[in-house]
Amino acid sequence: MYQDFTDSAAGANDQQGDIAALRRKLKAMRLDGFFVPREDAFQGEYVPAANERLKWLTGFSGSAGLAIILPRQAALFVDGRYILQAPQQVDTRTLDIVATATSDAAQWLATHVKPKQRIGLDPHLHTHSAVMRLRHAIEAAGAKLIFVGRNPIDALWKNRPAAPQTQVITQPLRLTGRSALAKRTALARDLRRDKIDATPISKPENIAWLLNIRADDVPHTPFALSFGVLHKSGKFDWYIEAARVPQNVRRAINMVGAARVQLCAPHTLAQGLAALHGKRVCLDPMATPAWFVQNLRRSEIVLGDDPCALPKACKTKAEINGAVAAHERDGVALCQFFCWLEKETKKTGQKVNVSEIDAAQKIEALRARDGHLRDLSFDSISGTGAHGAIVHYRVTHASNQKLRNGDIYLLDSGAQYADGTTDVTRTVLIGKRAPPREVVDNFTRVLRGHIALARVRFPVGTSGAQLDALARAPLWEAGLDFAHGTGHGVGSYLSVHEGPQRISRGGDVPLRPGMIVSNEPGFYKAGRYGIRIENLQYVSRETNTLYFETLTLAPIDRRLIDAKMLTTPERDWLNAYHARVYRTLSSALDAPTRQWLKRACAKI
Amino acid sequence: MYQDFTDSAAGANDQQGDIAALRRKLKAMRLDGFFVPREDAFQGEYVPAANERLKWLTGFSGSAGLAIILPRQAALFVDGRYILQAPQQVDTRTLDIVATATSDAAQWLATHVKPKQRIGLDPHLHTHSAVMRLRHAIEAAGAKLIFVGRNPIDALWKNRPAAPQTQVITQPLRLTGRSALAKRTALARDLRRDKIDATPISKPENIAWLLNIRADDVPHTPFALSFGVLHKSGKFDWYIEAARVPQNVRRAINMVGAARVQLCAPHTLAQGLAALHGKRVCLDPMATPAWFVQNLRRSEIVLGDDPCALPKACKTKAEINGAVAAHERDGVALCQFFCWLEKETKKTGQKVNVSEIDAAQKIEALRARDGHLRDLSFDSISGTGAHGAIVHYRVTHASNQKLRNGDIYLLDSGAQYADGTTDVTRTVLIGKRAPPREVVDNFTRVLRGHIALARVRFPVGTSGAQLDALARAPLWEAGLDFAHGTGHGVGSYLSVHEGPQRISRGGDVPLRPGMIVSNEPGFYKAGRYGIRIENLQYVSRETNTLYFETLTLAPIDRRLIDAKMLTTPERDWLNAYHARVYRTLSSALDAPTRQWLKRACAKI
Repeated sequence: MYQDFTDSAAGANDQQGDIAALRRKLKAMRLDGFFVPREDAFQGEYVPAANERLKWLTGFSGSAGLAIILPRQAALFVDGRYILQAPQQVDTRTLDIVATATSDAAQWLATHVKPKQRIGLDPHLHTHSAVMRLRHAIEAAGAKLIFVGRNPIDALWKNRPAAPQTQVITQPLRLTGRSALAKRTALARDLRRDKIDATPISKPENIAWLLNIRADDVPHTPFALSFGVLHKSGKFDWYIEAARVPQNVRRAINMVGAARVQLCAPHTLAQGLAALHGKRVCLDPMATPAWFVQNLRRSEIVLGDDPCALPKACKTKAEINGAVAAHERDGVALCQFFCWLEKETKKTGQKVNVSEIDAAQKIEALRARDGHLRDLSFDSISGTGAHGAIVHYRVTHASNQKLRNGDIYLLDSGAQYADGTTDVTRTVLIGKRAPPREVVDNFTRVLRGHIALARVRFPVGTSGAQLDALARAPLWEAGLDFAHGTGHGVGSYLSVHEGPQRISRGGDVPLRPGMIVSNEPGFYKAGRYGIRIENLQYVSRETNTLYFETLTLAPIDRRLIDAKMLTTPERDWLNAYHARVYRTLSSALDAPTRQWLKRACAKI
Repeated sequence: MYQDFTDSAAGANDQQGDIAALRRKLKAMRLDGFFVPREDAFQGEYVPAANERLKWLTGFSGSAGLAIILPRQAALFVDGRYILQAPQQVDTRTLDIVATATSDAAQWLATHVKPKQRIGLDPHLHTHSAVMRLRHAIEAAGAKLIFVGRNPIDALWKNRPAAPQTQVITQPLRLTGRSALAKRTALARDLRRDKIDATPISKPENIAWLLNIRADDVPHTPFALSFGVLHKSGKFDWYIEAARVPQNVRRAINMVGAARVQLCAPHTLAQGLAALHGKRVCLDPMATPAWFVQNLRRSEIVLGDDPCALPKACKTKAEINGAVAAHERDGVALCQFFCWLEKETKKTGQKVNVSEIDAAQKIEALRARDGHLRDLSFDSISGTGAHGAIVHYRVTHASNQKLRNGDIYLLDSGAQYADGTTDVTRTVLIGKRAPPREVVDNFTRVLRGHIALARVRFPVGTSGAQLDALARAPLWEAGLDFAHGTGHGVGSYLSVHEGPQRISRGGDVPLRPGMIVSNEPGFYKAGRYGIRIENLQYVSRETNTLYFETLTLAPIDRRLIDAKMLTTPERDWLNAYHARVYRTLSSALDAPTRQWLKRACAKI
């Protein structure tokens, strides 16, 4: 199984370091303080055990956080998701928990750092722009920011796990639609046009896209943690252990000619960057660790977006075809799951014998059944009743609940297949009891918002920020809203969260053909229930008008819909969607599941 | 009459200066070039004749433009509205016309300015931020930006008209709802909170709001062109000729006590600013002329929004009541107009004897009839057929057309009353011929967008940028759009275009209760017809939800609506709106107009 259900809140025994020892070490290094972020040098959502420095020091296991250690104070900054979890995991006698919403690190530094203090930072672990912000705050307080050569935590860490070095595999041309050489050649042309000599590629998802490779270094995202430098010739210096790259991969990425890939030992990266002295080097300040900038001291630095980000987001025809196939397979598993769930939860009346963990294990098993599953694209959010209202709920043995008759159950889950990444949320009624009017009203509003964003047509140049309100207006009408973005970009057998596009207030990147985004409005009533309806959809084009094609195939619970609240075009959309779900999936289902799907997809 | 119809395109005889003479003058001043913007020191939409320097030099009479004079080249930068007009007005042998869309001034300077050249600029006429941009472009070319002490055009200009010095009048407390003293006291409290000693107020609309005064220096906007400085004590130094301020105004603005208004001779402003040396002074870089910054050399300058802008935008209850009354009066005139138009255009069949100018004069006369009209809020846009597709069409004797049976006629007009500013657009069918299906389809889409923005409810914190797409989605659905913002802020017997809020892609200021905005989606088919439906509406609040109340009262042409394209809530909105128009206005109308209105407001 790819998901485990260990109780993260009970994980205080994961803490191996101690702050007092770190302070002694800092003193020996002539430092007064130190930053310990959750991120590693690759700035990803998932971090291998070898790089879980924050967890090692504090015990905190959340997916985002930053500790600042000063001589007499220490603080852990966490966002709203971890306000409850963090105090359970860390020793609050030595570490203050600070919600980033109330006081961000820069503000805290302004009042806690003393003049002349020397605050250390490992420039591998913070992006250039993050360092700019921290430096500004520290210097405003009259103190000094010091880049450390070696991270003191790495020096203290006994029995540190080895860095992952999984084998690299190719992502075949059949699935990418574009060879690694063609990608490098196109990007190199842009570099020459912009008079850039070279650009470091520091995010593993961009290297994976650029080289058409995948690996297994971290959960849920098939990355090879490595760096690279792309030159204007198209040559790509790939800093990765040669042993990880088998012959077939070497052949596929093309290792001869001017635009070749050169395998370089990771420890030679500083030299490789230094060799760019006098050259014009472009780097993405939001992605590139400050350490790169330090080693490019003698280059002319230009700031810009990572050149892989936009072409990676605009999927090729082959990638869209792959996504369609992946979503059909995923849809079969989803139908089997919801049919099973209905059977299990109907048969025993009041006492349902299915727990949140049972459900998460079942959907994983069903996805794995046909042998194509490579991983989950994230830990399934399987929450019933009040747990559904926790947007990032992760079920553990401690939190696990049985589904009850009358519950509103929310499942947000996704899979990694070689041909595509999925991410889908459905909210269903458990049992036969009629749902409360309030739930039906709010579910129908969420659905109307979802349909508005599925149906919208818009001119070339329109950004996600402009479309966001369409998905909220039906909730706004009743004075309701949801506190997360409406949609995020999704990779092609890559990260389930991928930029640069998104459907949210700040999503100012224009949408382009081939971009995949989620469409996931919701409504959450704390302590009671959560509703979310999420499909993936991709941007398609007809002359100067763009529109979305829906990828996700799974019925939307008709029992929670008030058809009278839908306009005719909304009802038409829903009926056409359900007809398509049935038409596409029914032949792959056994007879009872097909019967169930027929009912679930009946006209409304 | 407030509107005249002189042919602006024939106005080449308005050119009195010549570029050769200016170049000789520049040479004597040891300058190689000079900037001539259309703006004067007050940065408003309307400029008094005394300050029409660009028109004096070039003959160009448009409402926005910038000339740059270099030794051998000279260019006039105009936006899309004036691409056709500018070449008719200026001597294109000496002046290149450049569309700002293709090449803005900074780009042009980069390729035309030579190293070491000295380019002059009158710091009174450009804002601080505009100067920053121009300086950057000039210095990048190795040239130098020179502030001139006296504008060379003023030195050359013979028979220059006198600056306007109209009498100042009070805007009574009954209409403002807040005394000038109360406004100063509140702003002064904010200045002290932000540790600001003083702030210059350089925009006449902000002085008008702050002091509850009006005057008549420029058309369509009741401003007294003057400057001021607000101190943290609440004291306001008002730089205006004392003779312009009668006793009753002096009493109303309060000229005693710590938070008094002090009348200062305009020529003492430089001294007044110099007296702020060592103080912390806040100024709005987008509004304040660079000359202020020059004279505040020895102050600590903090950049920020003009403190009047936001409170001015959030109308008081008294201002909203005034707006309601003004719109009722305006609605009566509109009904009389459209009833008259229908009668006039029906009676003669094919040959209609009403021209665009006749219509503009008629609506002005009807607005003036009850004696409350102070001015038009802008020159009426009275365009039939193809003229309706020109978004900023200004009818002149040369362009004037008779309305024809079957035409789509667009009237965008507004009035200044003491209690409020109006701005309304209606598009109507002329004659009895059935409108083409295409027009009905597009009109109904524009209407659906208008209704979406009229009906929307949204949470506190939402900006106009988030709402903009709601008004466009029905057009987008058909691959259509319109190339202007959906809504602008509107003043209270002040400018018809007022910030900071707007409903458009860039409108990122959150909407607040009391803000008045226009709701004016449209569709334009070049060479054929234009459609726009515009009402003013203000933001109202119910707990944490905001919504709009519509101010404008005038029927929307039912003959151009396809009821089958409307959803039930849309139809309900339209019927309720029309019922309200009839209920509110009918008692003020004569019997034939009332009969007409009854038909125009019948249920759909």
